[in-house]
Amino acid sequence: MRYGGIEAGGTKFVVAISDEHQRIIKQIRIDTEAPAVTMPKVVEFFQDNPVSAIGIGCFGPIDIDPQSLNYGYITETPKVGWRNFNFLNVLKQALNVPMYWTTDVNVAAWGEYCLGAGKSSQHLFYSTVGTGIGGGMINNNQFYQARSHPETGHIPVRRYYEDNYKGSCAVHGDCLEGLAAGPAIEARAGVKAKKIASDDDLWQQEAYYLAQACMTYTLLYAPEKIVLGGGVSNQAQLFPLIRKSFEHQLKNYVDVPPLEQYIVHAELGDQAGIVGALLLAEKVYNG
Amino acid sequence: MRYGGIEAGGTKFVVAISDEHQRIIKQIRIDTEAPAVTMPKVVEFFQDNPVSAIGIGCFGPIDIDPQSLNYGYITETPKVGWRNFNFLNVLKQALNVPMYWTTDVNVAAWGEYCLGAGKSSQHLFYSTVGTGIGGGMINNNQFYQARSHPETGHIPVRRYYEDNYKGSCAVHGDCLEGLAAGPAIEARAGVKAKKIASDDDLWQQEAYYLAQACMTYTLLYAPEKIVLGGGVSNQAQLFPLIRKSFEHQLKNYVDVPPLEQYIVHAELGDQAGIVGALLLAEKVYNG
Ligand SMILES: Nc1ncnc2c1ncn2[C@@H]1O[C@H](COP(=O)(O)OP(=O)(O)O)[C@@H](O)[C@H]1O
Ligand SMILES: Nc1ncnc2c1ncn2[C@@H]1O[C@H](COP(=O)(O)OP(=O)(O)O)[C@@H](O)[C@H]1O
Ligand SMILES: [Zn+2]
Ligand SMILES: [Zn+2]
Repeated sequence: MRYGGIEAGGTKFVVAISDEHQRIIKQIRIDTEAPAVTMPKVVEFFQDNPVSAIGIGCFGPIDIDPQSLNYGYITETPKVGWRNFNFLNVLKQALNVPMYWTTDVNVAAWGEYCLGAGKSSQHLFYSTVGTGIGGGMINNNQFYQARSHPETGHIPVRRYYEDNYKGSCAVHGDCLEGLAAGPAIEARAGVKAKKIASDDDLWQQEAYYLAQACMTYTLLYAPEKIVLGGGVSNQAQLFPLIRKSFEHQLKNYVDVPPLEQYIVHAELGDQAGIVGALLLAEKVYNG
Repeated sequence: MRYGGIEAGGTKFVVAISDEHQRIIKQIRIDTEAPAVTMPKVVEFFQDNPVSAIGIGCFGPIDIDPQSLNYGYITETPKVGWRNFNFLNVLKQALNVPMYWTTDVNVAAWGEYCLGAGKSSQHLFYSTVGTGIGGGMINNNQFYQARSHPETGHIPVRRYYEDNYKGSCAVHGDCLEGLAAGPAIEARAGVKAKKIASDDDLWQQEAYYLAQACMTYTLLYAPEKIVLGGGVSNQAQLFPLIRKSFEHQLKNYVDVPPLEQYIVHAELGDQAGIVGALLLAEKVYNG
């Protein structure tokens, strides 16, 4: 028994197979070029390495409504060639196995939920803070979705009192992503985020934005745990600052678990997505 | 066959019975005093009017986790006597019938979902904008809940550019409720909200806050429809202003239905809550 996983990102695809114990046997990276270039490489990989089911986490927005005519499509993306691309059906026609279709952030959430920082939680909110900000909510063992999947990175936020940066979101300017994703930190600092001193005030400001977002996620989703992943979350000094600012902003309005257990760093790092995709392949295979 | 409903609010309880066709047969109002005064009147009503099941919508926060030791309790309320009150069990001991236990805003959401403005939607977000702001999300025929129920009225919001009001939320000051619930409107105007001219700039400001909240609800919950109820929503001129501001803030980042159908006024008025409670009695009775 072999499972397949695809983490389809805007710059690269990670494609892997695992055995029936979810041990990864082979994993490759494919650059994201036009669909006509990238997709045949994905198909070829699974023709060479046959699997019983495939879990797919795809950059978005994507159509995840099984009733929709566009189910399985990438919809609004600015990425050349991928807009309105019939992703799932192209794969299904080439590789006739059951497939689980969800967002890139949802597969990472699933990885953390099953094997990472969320493994003891029933209700997990996962957010990645990297080039962009995205999130996925797992509620009673299922992804929260309604008319569509959530887009938690683009919520409006109040500004930090001394922040005048215009914001880097191409759509909104100063939404959460525009003020708190990696590119926004780097635009203010003028250097790569990982070069900024860990005691720089910019991290206090960053913590304020992420804490504010965690407050909104707490009030609307009421998760048991919030797991933060993505490049920016590697700044370990952020976590105590986020928890403190969260407490200061929420003011105990609702009960939450002790904050050291409530707002935590992801544990699977870059592997969360592909691990989650492989686990979702198993889930779809077992019905 | 008779169903019972209880809408337990901070100032009054509405208690009713309906027949098997969900026609309301009798409805009374009981002032909210201490539990030892109010609860016996509720019990007496149902002793005089026996029912097969009761739906309860209670002011909160309340414990709705069936696994919790405090399931059925009102938890953190500032209301004297009601804090940590074992609401559901007091009723169960007096009236031995199946009961559906949820929040006051959830029963109103359920009423609108079944018989009001949300009746054609699978995924409905309902918010009341009155003395406070609260919301409930119905996702695939079920209330969204996780560790607890949502508390959507207390999210952080950006200020309207010319608004200097400090905010009326006793906990946060200028959260959404603190800036946009009825008391905040009235504190700025110095008169009752219903006396403010319908072309006053205060409504533009109010629309900005409610639109901003609708944007956050849209991004996190992805509902098919947002229904606004409560006293403030009676200002019909708000709706076009909210829709316009929503469009301006969201900037089409995600697809939503046409706004005249997406952000709409509640249809059941004050009856939404008790109607929803009676329908939930039927739901719990039928398992
Ligand atoms: N060690 C680090 N510390 C702080 N920020 C980082 C670090 N590594 C990466 N970043 C930020 O995260 C962004 C990349 O995010 P990442 O999650 O690694 O990839 P992506 O979001 O593109 O999948 C970079 O733009 C950078 O600003
Ligand atoms: N017609 C109206 N127009 C505007 N605001 C109103 C109107 N009626 C009531 N309100 C506001 O709504 C608040 C009462 O809210 P309501 O939803 O009626 O009750 P509650 O929230 O207490 O259950 C009042 O504080 C008032 O500010
Ligand atoms: Zn944005
Ligand atoms: Zn508040």
